[in-house]
Amino acid sequence: MRVELAHGAGGRMSERLIADHFLPQLGNDVLGELLDSAILGDIALTTDSYVVTPWRFPGGDIGRLAVCGTVNDLCMVGARPLGLTAGFILEEGFELDSLDIVAASMAAAAEEAGVRIVAGDTKVVPRGACDKIFINTSGVGLLSADFRPHPGRIELGDHILISGTLADHGVTVMSMREGIPMTGAMQSDAAPLGGLVDALRRVGVGVRALRDPTRGGVAQSLLEMARTSGLRMELSEAALPMHPAVRSACEILGFDPLYVANEGKLLAVVAAADSDRALETLRALPYGEQAARIGQVVAGEAGCQLRTRIGGVRSVRPATGELLPRIC
Amino acid sequence: MRVELAHGAGGRMSERLIADHFLPQLGNDVLGELLDSAILGDIALTTDSYVVTPWRFPGGDIGRLAVCGTVNDLCMVGARPLGLTAGFILEEGFELDSLDIVAASMAAAAEEAGVRIVAGDTKVVPRGACDKIFINTSGVGLLSADFRPHPGRIELGDHILISGTLADHGVTVMSMREGIPMTGAMQSDAAPLGGLVDALRRVGVGVRALRDPTRGGVAQSLLEMARTSGLRMELSEAALPMHPAVRSACEILGFDPLYVANEGKLLAVVAAADSDRALETLRALPYGEQAARIGQVVAGEAGCQLRTRIGGVRSVRPATGELLPRIC
Repeated sequence: MRVELAHGAGGRMSERLIADHFLPQLGNDVLGELLDSAILGDIALTTDSYVVTPWRFPGGDIGRLAVCGTVNDLCMVGARPLGLTAGFILEEGFELDSLDIVAASMAAAAEEAGVRIVAGDTKVVPRGACDKIFINTSGVGLLSADFRPHPGRIELGDHILISGTLADHGVTVMSMREGIPMTGAMQSDAAPLGGLVDALRRVGVGVRALRDPTRGGVAQSLLEMARTSGLRMELSEAALPMHPAVRSACEILGFDPLYVANEGKLLAVVAAADSDRALETLRALPYGEQAARIGQVVAGEAGCQLRTRIGGVRSVRPATGELLPRIC
Repeated sequence: MRVELAHGAGGRMSERLIADHFLPQLGNDVLGELLDSAILGDIALTTDSYVVTPWRFPGGDIGRLAVCGTVNDLCMVGARPLGLTAGFILEEGFELDSLDIVAASMAAAAEEAGVRIVAGDTKVVPRGACDKIFINTSGVGLLSADFRPHPGRIELGDHILISGTLADHGVTVMSMREGIPMTGAMQSDAAPLGGLVDALRRVGVGVRALRDPTRGGVAQSLLEMARTSGLRMELSEAALPMHPAVRSACEILGFDPLYVANEGKLLAVVAAADSDRALETLRALPYGEQAARIGQVVAGEAGCQLRTRIGGVRSVRPATGELLPRIC
């Protein structure tokens, strides 16, 4: 048996790789939680490696992605980022000018997110041993006792919100790779989400759980929330915000936007009574202008379903196929 | 200008890459310290990526290396490891049986070091986009106020100790790659060093500074200590402990063992009055049996010198050439 591309795609094969090859040997109660960040008392810790190709794309580059992704993983468990590390694997021959662009982009994203890169490491491998540039960012954050979003806190009747349009990042990168003509509207959404989370917290919204729906998209994030909470998530197809250009590209490429990676979107499950206030709060902020209520927690067995435009209901299942690699 | 292999070798080119391309944009007072781990109040944070080839070698594999290396970086600033993250980049087609070997090795090393892997990430890239398996490990540790080894604490007259033989890891990996016949004595020294550090601390040795001399070897570690402390380090060639087989392999391969990576050695600068007790303490422990006093801090300009077997003195300078890549 060998590693397949689908093992890295964030769907069922990724889950099996973790369940069959990592957890049996490395498992412990913290790792087993499989949250966006590990929680060690009042410290949150997270890691992500970035291998996206091309390394630069409309709306960002691998550096912005790496900083935002790790900051967001901290924010999703309610932590305030304290510091990031950056581990570079560079291919011999990579342009130093390109490295400068990546470093500048990381610096700008870190400043925007209000976090510093405090430790780093660089490895160089010979030509052909990696593809240009890979970056790992890990991060540590601090938690307070009064804000601990967790899927286990979700309740029947809660509302499901998203901070903006779906699938922008994945579709932009794939369109670029596949040579699909792109309009100016189409760009990666890579962005730090701490401002949105802080605002929800500040106004006292009853936040149950947060996720940034990256690999595997909104579908995978909701399925994981459903499994942990034992509840059923219902999405309304008509309510899903999408850029028209991204919607068209999804049709051309044959992608279901529910499964496509976002890199700057907040998926929030909030108390129903607070959802109007939460939406208003998100819409007043950068990266939240197009926030929408996209579903709710309904009665039924644990899982996820989509109420279609024509009023039917279809089950949302874990992705099984080979999603496209190297999106992030 | 392009990235060269020497940019990742831990010598002068690595320093220039950091100074010219990372620090100008990402620099801050914590990152600028360039210690083994960043210090954020009482939290230490570190990261390292591992790209060693072959991924398995006598004495260990990339998994053991990744866990030990990051644990050691925490221990060198005086932190007790709290949790590690593991980020895998896997090449499509890598054997799952091999991945199991690596995971088992990480689990064993983590158990030995008394730390858990609490967060992980896996990316899979298509065949040819990376070479089999790369691992990033990052780690967080806790510091106490009463034990903060730092090169700035080194004083004239201090003694320089090493916990065992030089160059075992780098020479083992290179011998394997170059097809040099290896005896059973030759193996990587990859090991967690927390036990040695804890023991020095427990018996109250005046520990000034600690390093694990990995990339760039003992030479690079001492040069960095010299720069930070503004002091001159003198090594005694005759005192450097080496396995005879490693010494021979160094001669065959043309390596200066002072510059070759170790992965389980503690370089400790201690108060002269405590150095006998420190040696005794180290020698009583696993991984410390061959501990030796290898030099002292002498008068003179900041730098490093070697007192040779025949009584001469030669300057130890930063490595400039292309050290061999993918040793760690």
